[in-house]
Amino acid sequence: MTKFDEATQAIRVDETTYDVCLDPGYAIGGPLNGGYLMAVVLRAAVDASPFEHPVSTTAQFLRAPVAGPARVEVERLKAGRTVAFLRARLVQDGAAQMECLVTTATLGDGPPAYADEQPPHLMPPPEQCVRLPDPRPESGMTLNAQMELLFDPPTIGWLTGEPSGRPESRAYFRMAEPQDPDPYVLALAVDAMPPVVFSAGARGWAPTVDLTWHLRALPAPGPLTLIGSGRLVHDGWFDEEVEVRDSRGRLVAQSRQLARVGRG
Amino acid sequence: MTKFDEATQAIRVDETTYDVCLDPGYAIGGPLNGGYLMAVVLRAAVDASPFEHPVSTTAQFLRAPVAGPARVEVERLKAGRTVAFLRARLVQDGAAQMECLVTTATLGDGPPAYADEQPPHLMPPPEQCVRLPDPRPESGMTLNAQMELLFDPPTIGWLTGEPSGRPESRAYFRMAEPQDPDPYVLALAVDAMPPVVFSAGARGWAPTVDLTWHLRALPAPGPLTLIGSGRLVHDGWFDEEVEVRDSRGRLVAQSRQLARVGRG
Repeated sequence: MTKFDEATQAIRVDETTYDVCLDPGYAIGGPLNGGYLMAVVLRAAVDASPFEHPVSTTAQFLRAPVAGPARVEVERLKAGRTVAFLRARLVQDGAAQMECLVTTATLGDGPPAYADEQPPHLMPPPEQCVRLPDPRPESGMTLNAQMELLFDPPTIGWLTGEPSGRPESRAYFRMAEPQDPDPYVLALAVDAMPPVVFSAGARGWAPTVDLTWHLRALPAPGPLTLIGSGRLVHDGWFDEEVEVRDSRGRLVAQSRQLARVGRG
Repeated sequence: MTKFDEATQAIRVDETTYDVCLDPGYAIGGPLNGGYLMAVVLRAAVDASPFEHPVSTTAQFLRAPVAGPARVEVERLKAGRTVAFLRARLVQDGAAQMECLVTTATLGDGPPAYADEQPPHLMPPPEQCVRLPDPRPESGMTLNAQMELLFDPPTIGWLTGEPSGRPESRAYFRMAEPQDPDPYVLALAVDAMPPVVFSAGARGWAPTVDLTWHLRALPAPGPLTLIGSGRLVHDGWFDEEVEVRDSRGRLVAQSRQLARVGRG
């Protein structure tokens, strides 16, 4: 069991309740990372489901839970022959922290019937990509140590005062502790990059309001490629799409989140 | 009040319950259209919320409700200063038919801070676009009479045995009865076109499993442009993205649904 597997463990208490312990190693300042929280909830939801894979997950981020004990409450809505629908709620200190709808199925591993290819040369090779500087210890950005992200340099130009002017972020991703990607790692990956809006010139705390992601295929071993973009920044809101490809170049996950533009 | 406003009316019974009457005019064969069902649920959810607009909606399509009386059960999860989170369930004959998470806010009408423009010449002018043939009365496709859709011809080449080979669908949209677009019309619009997978050569009944859409701005009066596409058809699943622009060319809604490839 890897550290990430442990940090996302959900222990069945009864038919509808799972105990979890939120890990301080996945913090982004004070709050915990949303992708990490989704991975925790998905452990419980998949365990409560007759199928193996979370093909669709929507999370509303109601509050910001802290490290420590919490509970996942699962409601089975309907299970058919190929798909099951569940509702899952992360609860801490008696308050709902995150509300989710999860759809599960069991995905096969055959070749796609149709696949839109990633545009060639969208990403430079890893050796031309760069890491973010290590966060200051007092920043509370413990998440960074769990993952290795290698960014396409122009998409983190905002670090040195040169934002590209478009909402975008692109990086190679893998876990710091060697681990093959699986659906839970993908839940982390779709929310692993700095907000795409940084690159459009808007800095500061940019809280996710809700996020939906779809697991489209099981990832092959090896690093993932994350392609993040946004279409519109309007009235304090922005969208962030992340497309995740595995080491074979196959699309394995698609996400979109709606978030608030930072004021900091 | 337009016919669509009437067909989507939700009458408050108490704090958490709304009575609705599902209209037979929005059927696609036996089942009712998913976008129509979302519009009905959103009437209740927005009424139960302190804000005016449904900025994010996720729907899981558990069952296929029929025309006639139904109920929407709303749970208020959290309301803050700018955002409120709700859960809403469409119930008929004692069974949950559709489970939703709805996030509401009040959107302003200023210019966007950043907007990714629609590629020029993506759509031919309306006079070069074509209607679908009227459905046979016995098909039960009553939905078609509610809307006027003018398609970019290659994207309905599948009608004459010439699918483009890519999942795509593009059309101009307006309600048959004159009505300015609003968030409820947008809920209908994001699920108004034939499945994009028809254009990739897969015909037959293609049920939506879940759909998430974001209201990004309030639409100006006039026709909408719907740009539908898909990235992957794999293991019996496909994604369908629809981007909706208003008559000014502004992005007003973004959706993604996960659906099953038809077997018919």
